[in-house]
Amino acid sequence: MAVYQATTSAPVNIACIKYWGKRDTTLILPTNSSLSVTLSQDHLRSTTTSRADPSFTETKLWLNGKEEDIKSGGRLERCLKELKKMRKERIEDKEPNAPKLSEWNLHIASYNNFPTAAGLASSASGFAALTSSIAALYELNTFSSVKPAASPSELSIVARLGSGSACRSLFGGFVAWQAGSSPSGSDSLAVEVAPQNHWPTMHALICVVNDAKKGTSSTSGMQRTVETSALLQHRIKDVVPKRLEGIIKAIQEKDFDTFAKITMADSNQFHAVALDTAPPIFYMNDVSRSIISIIEELNRVSLSKTGHLVAAYTFDAGPNAVIYTEEKNVKQIIEIIVKYFPQSSELTPFPDPFKLFGGKQPEGAEELPEGFNQDVAKVWEVGSVKGLIHTRIGDGPRVLAEAEALLGSDGLPKTLA
Amino acid sequence: MAVYQATTSAPVNIACIKYWGKRDTTLILPTNSSLSVTLSQDHLRSTTTSRADPSFTETKLWLNGKEEDIKSGGRLERCLKELKKMRKERIEDKEPNAPKLSEWNLHIASYNNFPTAAGLASSASGFAALTSSIAALYELNTFSSVKPAASPSELSIVARLGSGSACRSLFGGFVAWQAGSSPSGSDSLAVEVAPQNHWPTMHALICVVNDAKKGTSSTSGMQRTVETSALLQHRIKDVVPKRLEGIIKAIQEKDFDTFAKITMADSNQFHAVALDTAPPIFYMNDVSRSIISIIEELNRVSLSKTGHLVAAYTFDAGPNAVIYTEEKNVKQIIEIIVKYFPQSSELTPFPDPFKLFGGKQPEGAEELPEGFNQDVAKVWEVGSVKGLIHTRIGDGPRVLAEAEALLGSDGLPKTLA
Repeated sequence: MAVYQATTSAPVNIACIKYWGKRDTTLILPTNSSLSVTLSQDHLRSTTTSRADPSFTETKLWLNGKEEDIKSGGRLERCLKELKKMRKERIEDKEPNAPKLSEWNLHIASYNNFPTAAGLASSASGFAALTSSIAALYELNTFSSVKPAASPSELSIVARLGSGSACRSLFGGFVAWQAGSSPSGSDSLAVEVAPQNHWPTMHALICVVNDAKKGTSSTSGMQRTVETSALLQHRIKDVVPKRLEGIIKAIQEKDFDTFAKITMADSNQFHAVALDTAPPIFYMNDVSRSIISIIEELNRVSLSKTGHLVAAYTFDAGPNAVIYTEEKNVKQIIEIIVKYFPQSSELTPFPDPFKLFGGKQPEGAEELPEGFNQDVAKVWEVGSVKGLIHTRIGDGPRVLAEAEALLGSDGLPKTLA
Repeated sequence: MAVYQATTSAPVNIACIKYWGKRDTTLILPTNSSLSVTLSQDHLRSTTTSRADPSFTETKLWLNGKEEDIKSGGRLERCLKELKKMRKERIEDKEPNAPKLSEWNLHIASYNNFPTAAGLASSASGFAALTSSIAALYELNTFSSVKPAASPSELSIVARLGSGSACRSLFGGFVAWQAGSSPSGSDSLAVEVAPQNHWPTMHALICVVNDAKKGTSSTSGMQRTVETSALLQHRIKDVVPKRLEGIIKAIQEKDFDTFAKITMADSNQFHAVALDTAPPIFYMNDVSRSIISIIEELNRVSLSKTGHLVAAYTFDAGPNAVIYTEEKNVKQIIEIIVKYFPQSSELTPFPDPFKLFGGKQPEGAEELPEGFNQDVAKVWEVGSVKGLIHTRIGDGPRVLAEAEALLGSDGLPKTLA
């Protein structure tokens, strides 16, 4: 008998204009629009296999091989409900011969290829992979059909119900999450600002920073900011709209200087409103601040020599730095980072993917650029930056071949090597 | 022949509503009003002796025994010019027999009794001591006359020309610096909100934090914020006026909870706008943040048990914490701070001034308050907090006896033991 199963992968995205604050915590409607860069699934990705079968007695979910409870009325259930509704109304009710997949239970297996220790949020790529795999299973998606029953933007609404920033992982390239105004959330969705191939030389370097203590969860933190920050409303009303306009224009024109200025300013302002919260919220630590000082100094020197910036840092709700830069600058930046943050002999999770160092662990820069004030930061002990992940701008969710499925013929997770 | 000389001391003040940003950098006119607590000169003080003599061939200044150049057109010269003008117009022009001190050169010796290493700004107490000592020499001041030629508020305008926050050190107790609106600065002055004896149980604990790298100077930092922060104008227009009103009412009613809430919120917002600056400015480090986490946890536990807060932290343009609390809470707070920040065997600069520990180095708390989550911070290595200075609310400038003079009979600095 027929097997109804689909496997997709979805990317991580890192915001340049930050999402911080919900106007509706159930529907996950944000207080402001945001904009992100989608990172390549060649390195960081979540993969999900979804299978519908009339013999399944209940819907089950496995995350990284471990079965998870599905909270009734929870975020996952809300996503599944929406997808089943789309399947029923848009396909089954119209095509009598279409199997009634919406009435069957599901087995869902999801896997993140990046270590949790990396401290990278997996909820965005995870819910994007879940949404796209079920959309593929239900044949709602653009990937398997020229006349989709649901567009990526419509699917981004479903992913948003799972985790706000997940909606931005439904597209590759540069993606805006429009806050929207409808109480139903029908217009709070992701749109593509520019595709991956518009600016293929945009690379990203993730500095994985050792985190001594667990920070405030972004879900609770952002609501505390909404409730107590005297500055947040000003950011939402007067600052973000201008920045969004400015960075979209910069992306369209591939104007890296403006892109970098806005990205760094918005990261700093996000952490500023977190600090303006009662009690205050801190995500960056002294290592994060040293990375900022190094990049600011690198930009200062470059600006004085060439009139242009070379890199932009941004920090999400944790101490890790993500540095955006053009491909041609990555090697130098890695060598300078490694000079201040010596690496252990182990290679990073994705060793030298662009063959900048012959597959070896990068060495620290022997000399700094002329005019660079080396005292902007101290040389930290090994392990302060636990690893470097070099990646680049990437595409949206991918439909994978049967061979990549995470569920076996028995409908249970394969044991991963 | 007669010797014309006066010696005064002046206190340090620590702001609860922060001064950050000038609307006039020459006259030192602030973008917003601020409010501070004057700390006791029994512990921290600047002392200045000023002498006028027709035989002096030039005006000289010694800081901590070392002669300093007096920059022509600089801040010091502006202060001296104003004071000479007051002396001439208000006394010499009216009393023909009054010696023409305003026409004579000055010898000025100033000394701070706290180590520079403490990282406490000495410019406020320094310029307040300088202003009050010359005012005493010129008999302008309230201290030597019942019918003063210049009120403390008028003298605060002079001190302001030397260093903005110095104007607040012309009064004891709780002091507001009114931003004013006149381009001349004639209404940008300090006023007493409440005297020292209004709330004598208000104590302060300064945690001297080890500072790895030199931070941005406040003079350049605040102007960078004025030029680049998208949030500062909102703070100035919409936030500070309400907070000022609220904290003045709290002080009048001795409402510690409100005093503490506003003080902590404004410290955090000051550091938030510094972070919202391009390039961002950081004054607090991971040690500072641990102190915040400890005080916030202490307040959380106390609030749940008693409905009241016990302490308020505030941070100026550096990593040092100043903790305001009522006298009855100081011992417990010191013991908790010492638990997380073990002290070396050396005693702090002012060992146990209130005899809480029998003159010995305080021990760390053996147990934390019930319900206190000890994981809010790690136990830091010795030296992370270099010392603790326990002091309390204090009075304004004091006129000192001849014996305290820093200048000898030859008009040159005494060599201090």
